[in-house]
Amino acid sequence: MKITKAAIERAEKLIQPYIHKTPVLTNQSINELTGIDFYFKCENFQKIGAFKIRGGMHATLNLTPTQLKSGIATHSSGNHAQALAFAGKTLGIKAYIVMPSSSPQVKVNAVRGYGAEVIICEPNQQAREAALNKVVAETGASFIHPYDNDDVIIGQATCVKEFIEEVPDLEVVITPVGGGGLLSGTCMGAYYYKPDLKVYAGEPEGAADAVLSIQTGKVEKAPFINTIADGLLTTLSERTLAIIKEHVTTIFLVSDEEIKSALKLIYERMKIIVEPSCVVPFAAAIKNKELFKGKKVGIILSGGNVDLTKFAEWFPPST
Amino acid sequence: MKITKAAIERAEKLIQPYIHKTPVLTNQSINELTGIDFYFKCENFQKIGAFKIRGGMHATLNLTPTQLKSGIATHSSGNHAQALAFAGKTLGIKAYIVMPSSSPQVKVNAVRGYGAEVIICEPNQQAREAALNKVVAETGASFIHPYDNDDVIIGQATCVKEFIEEVPDLEVVITPVGGGGLLSGTCMGAYYYKPDLKVYAGEPEGAADAVLSIQTGKVEKAPFINTIADGLLTTLSERTLAIIKEHVTTIFLVSDEEIKSALKLIYERMKIIVEPSCVVPFAAAIKNKELFKGKKVGIILSGGNVDLTKFAEWFPPST
Repeated sequence: MKITKAAIERAEKLIQPYIHKTPVLTNQSINELTGIDFYFKCENFQKIGAFKIRGGMHATLNLTPTQLKSGIATHSSGNHAQALAFAGKTLGIKAYIVMPSSSPQVKVNAVRGYGAEVIICEPNQQAREAALNKVVAETGASFIHPYDNDDVIIGQATCVKEFIEEVPDLEVVITPVGGGGLLSGTCMGAYYYKPDLKVYAGEPEGAADAVLSIQTGKVEKAPFINTIADGLLTTLSERTLAIIKEHVTTIFLVSDEEIKSALKLIYERMKIIVEPSCVVPFAAAIKNKELFKGKKVGIILSGGNVDLTKFAEWFPPST
Repeated sequence: MKITKAAIERAEKLIQPYIHKTPVLTNQSINELTGIDFYFKCENFQKIGAFKIRGGMHATLNLTPTQLKSGIATHSSGNHAQALAFAGKTLGIKAYIVMPSSSPQVKVNAVRGYGAEVIICEPNQQAREAALNKVVAETGASFIHPYDNDDVIIGQATCVKEFIEEVPDLEVVITPVGGGGLLSGTCMGAYYYKPDLKVYAGEPEGAADAVLSIQTGKVEKAPFINTIADGLLTTLSERTLAIIKEHVTTIFLVSDEEIKSALKLIYERMKIIVEPSCVVPFAAAIKNKELFKGKKVGIILSGGNVDLTKFAEWFPPST
């Protein structure tokens, strides 16, 4: 399906019975501290704990009854896996999820908890694709890519649409960028519903493929991978790069130390649980606060599925 | 001021400009898991991150202009300290806070952040009282006790009043019990606004003074102190014991393991940050789930001020 205004509106109606309209929160002490007027769209409170249910559910609902009968499949170490597992459970169809052996146990458990069939593979791209092709060949399930899929991008676009409706005078929106599904959807939603809304993105220094891809103009791998933002390790696709190149003002890089400081601020001041990947845009805004001073800046807090044992690493006890 | 219905209504109006009307959240997966219809009154989202601002602000606003000029004082290792510090800052008066040297750094910093004067003392009751008496003698500040004070109890009662207004068919409400301020306020609020609402409390096994006090009929110390619920270490007072004896159905004891499981459930499913002390009633409900099955059970999530480095202790990385 083409990414049009009508498609986004149709998607919103289709997925509405299955998702939450997430709240937009503000925090006085964070605003005082930064001089920025922040609005947080809390997709950490979304069904399955992340925005991914929007795209996953929309792509699933667009399958034909015959396709639905054979189920859905994907490879994902993260929230897209949970999204399809949840879609499968909700719609009463099979979901096959290929997950790398490096996936956080909390995410594997959550996927199994929704009744999906988990296929564990080696943690590399070839193994993931091989395992996925095998399950698709054996079952006839429809492969729903985490982001290289227009229906998925249309689903993610519903998030910024809600955000604009709730905060009509928003001036800036910043999202994280991994594969670029949320960012592309945000670009297209902003384009159709508030063309003067500036779209930025935040990316970890330790997974800087999107910044590099914008520089060279083609899909690049990150020069190196080393970050706690484990939801943002994937590269862009041709599809997402094309949208991002056209619509995104700047992609900011942030360090893991900046991500941890931003996490601490959200935990301590807002009392909500978010993933490291999800505070990358907030960290980027703080790092570039002169640019955003006094502006109404929207942050899409993309998810809240964390492994609690990771806190020991992020916030070690003082010795 | 006597604890009457009129006093609670007056308190609500007085403090309304300074506090948040906190949201009541529900969580489908927790309800499915437990078979209980839970409602969570989120005082972790309250100003200063805890319900204590209700009582602290109310007691301060009841002082005369002359009293206000000399400031307010208390001894507290925790959220009451922040409440008075915030009240002092908001009303433009001095706040003197005696804090034991064992106080979490995050709480000392927060109190200083509100501009209060912190007096650090040895971590025992005599040292706290001596330091407090000294500061009161020197400054003429009004001592506002964390819970042995009717104005404080009246302020805390506004919480259950809001809760009942939002969930009129609530059948049960459970609060934590430390010194008994919130529990006493909840008893009196329930008594005036929904007399058939059953009030329970949760207490840590490692600070079981309230259960013992109910058994013997007089204010007792805990047999031993050993719990992660560090907001619940204080003993009752004659005043709070009298109210609790008359109105509370049962005080349940829970272990630290049960507290940690309850914390994990709230963090993972609800994506909100709460203190260990604050999940004690939730842990108690889960432990006694046969009693509450199918019932509409209200939990007052009393606060969200945690030291993030504590997660390493509560959720150690698997080895």
